[in-house]
Amino acid sequence: MDSQKIAVFRKENFNAAHRLHSSYYSESENQVLFGKCNNPNYHGHNYTLIVKVVGCIDIKTGYVIDMKVLGNLIKENITEKFDHKNLNLDTSEFKELNPTAENIAMVIYTILREKLETKFELKITLYETERNYVEYPA
Amino acid sequence: MDSQKIAVFRKENFNAAHRLHSSYYSESENQVLFGKCNNPNYHGHNYTLIVKVVGCIDIKTGYVIDMKVLGNLIKENITEKFDHKNLNLDTSEFKELNPTAENIAMVIYTILREKLETKFELKITLYETERNYVEYPA
Amino acid sequence: MDSQKIAVFRKENFNAAHRLHSSYYSESENQVLFGKCNNPNYHGHNYTLIVKVVGCIDIKTGYVIDMKVLGNLIKENITEKFDHKNLNLDTSEFKELNPTAENIAMVIYTILREKLETKFELKITLYETERNYVEYPA
Amino acid sequence: MDSQKIAVFRKENFNAAHRLHSSYYSESENQVLFGKCNNPNYHGHNYTLIVKVVGCIDIKTGYVIDMKVLGNLIKENITEKFDHKNLNLDTSEFKELNPTAENIAMVIYTILREKLETKFELKITLYETERNYVEYPA
Amino acid sequence: MDSQKIAVFRKENFNAAHRLHSSYYSESENQVLFGKCNNPNYHGHNYTLIVKVVGCIDIKTGYVIDMKVLGNLIKENITEKFDHKNLNLDTSEFKELNPTAENIAMVIYTILREKLETKFELKITLYETERNYVEYPA
Amino acid sequence: MDSQKIAVFRKENFNAAHRLHSSYYSESENQVLFGKCNNPNYHGHNYTLIVKVVGCIDIKTGYVIDMKVLGNLIKENITEKFDHKNLNLDTSEFKELNPTAENIAMVIYTILREKLETKFELKITLYETERNYVEYPA
Repeated sequence: MDSQKIAVFRKENFNAAHRLHSSYYSESENQVLFGKCNNPNYHGHNYTLIVKVVGCIDIKTGYVIDMKVLGNLIKENITEKFDHKNLNLDTSEFKELNPTAENIAMVIYTILREKLETKFELKITLYETERNYVEYPA
Repeated sequence: MDSQKIAVFRKENFNAAHRLHSSYYSESENQVLFGKCNNPNYHGHNYTLIVKVVGCIDIKTGYVIDMKVLGNLIKENITEKFDHKNLNLDTSEFKELNPTAENIAMVIYTILREKLETKFELKITLYETERNYVEYPA
Repeated sequence: MDSQKIAVFRKENFNAAHRLHSSYYSESENQVLFGKCNNPNYHGHNYTLIVKVVGCIDIKTGYVIDMKVLGNLIKENITEKFDHKNLNLDTSEFKELNPTAENIAMVIYTILREKLETKFELKITLYETERNYVEYPA
Repeated sequence: MDSQKIAVFRKENFNAAHRLHSSYYSESENQVLFGKCNNPNYHGHNYTLIVKVVGCIDIKTGYVIDMKVLGNLIKENITEKFDHKNLNLDTSEFKELNPTAENIAMVIYTILREKLETKFELKITLYETERNYVEYPA
Repeated sequence: MDSQKIAVFRKENFNAAHRLHSSYYSESENQVLFGKCNNPNYHGHNYTLIVKVVGCIDIKTGYVIDMKVLGNLIKENITEKFDHKNLNLDTSEFKELNPTAENIAMVIYTILREKLETKFELKITLYETERNYVEYPA
Repeated sequence: MDSQKIAVFRKENFNAAHRLHSSYYSESENQVLFGKCNNPNYHGHNYTLIVKVVGCIDIKTGYVIDMKVLGNLIKENITEKFDHKNLNLDTSEFKELNPTAENIAMVIYTILREKLETKFELKITLYETERNYVEYPA
């Protein structure tokens, strides 16, 4: 029964450098488009990541998913990969792809979607700053 | 494809005075209904506004919408209009309409809906206090 | 018209002790499954509860529901019941049921659903810690 | 022994309207000095108040002061006085005195200082917004 | 030179059950004094601990103290000791001592003071809830 | 009279990239000392800066210092200098100096101390993350 579906959320953080730059545009167009976010020497953020997993409660454990298991999944696949890294230089995902909050959220979704059992629905919320954040899928 | 839809959020603040008072009721009924919120001399709040915009990622920029553009849209149409104002006295919208959080959120939605391209979905979250907030549409 | 639907949210807190323990498992299985959360002497949390009520704005009051009424409903039926209690020992709901965040949220939903007029939709968000929280229904 | 001194803190909130206006200046000077904060129709804030009390631990209770007692002292003398009020119009303290955060903090200090036993040291922190706050005495 | 002194802060959390009960009073006096906090079956909190260390900057590292070292000191001596524990039953410190926030802060201070080099000053802030917290020494 | 002294606080943010690296040590010593914070490609943070100014209340304005003046002072001298910058590469202050939170706070103090009238006392709080922050002078 659908009304049995419940969502659990796990919050994690990582701190990374990045630079907004699109290979579809010239240097000067990038400068106009992204302004100070285009700084060639990079800037950085404390990213806050919230992973939402929707499923049914296991009647025996009372869990949708063990939060320690979910926390470790995030740490092994996301935090260790992105924390204290330069997203443009140190990660294969953003060699070509512009590391906007939107694209980072989609990349995180794609990585976790493969690791998470298919019976679970998944949603990613990513805060770039306290004032700017994204959610995927909407 | 719908799974491409992603949401971006922008948080802004404004500080305003208001008084809850409904023209459908007598003075004494208003007093009973709204209690201390009916104070004829007004009281006030630090409102926190979160604007959610849902759309597709532009493959070239990596943005749903440029947050600077969205931030300016909110500042020009909402913050400058309501910040450091008395909602009942200084704004045309609440001359007749009771400035409850629900009505303020709907007014903000209506203003921004007209300014935002129709390809985007829009949702407004408005915190009146840390403990009381509303979301429109639900 | 559905677009008239608006959500209001009310945040409350309660502080309680609990122990995760499932009657479906042996003592040693419980120890493996729930680790330090299985401590027979209990541990505790500051739970943050957010109650979301969806309905139409009453054109005369400008309210979906009076927040004082909703706040009192939560205090009388939830906060007074669970605050400064041992969930496993002091409440009938968790005599058998494992007091995971998921199950606590469902219990709170069931209690409030009966007290709230059927015209309103209801959703419960429960924070066990700042990093772990649940939402029911999803 | 001085090293026995410990501080306890209690946080409360109140929501009020105010207008910055100084009787030392002309209307136009007030407008220049206080800008939009001088709006004659008032604006408002959610004030967050933190009361710090320094004293010795009572060896029998383990308390410096009972937080319920301190909380009630604040509610009876501050919150009920200022919450949902217009500071300029509804309170005797700000009939002449400009209700800046500095002056509000000093007024709260003066009120509570008289109510609190002299053996306790007192400090007031008052947030006007998340970004602007004051502390008295420094 | 004293003006070279700088403070560093490290925040950690632990979740514990406790019961306020003083051996200086009878059962009924305890009930009157501590009210619902005296519940014999315990209740609990998410405690937030902030450790402040004051010292001089090491000119070679640019650190007062390595935050990883400080974080591990807190984890090994405080978090592992108190997290997911019943303070009254599971810890030797509160067998006799009433686990008020004041006493917990002083116990944490005493433990860390012994582990921290004497050249550093130490201060403990402990949040029992978002609204109630203590600082030692004052 | 000293009891007239009151403190005002202004919070601002900036987002920057940095790398911990000390010229007093070899490459391998730096790697051991600073671990992942030594990443040669940089990482980054959302820094939160709180500027505390202590002075007397101007009896005519009710201000210690105009928060708009203080806010602009911070923006012109700190935020514009450091926001969306690589601290090691883009700023003269950290060409040689290791950009630890301690050193950044001292640099900000030195810059603002020169700009602020000598009658005011100044203190800087700098959050590198929600869990790690520093205060200068202590």
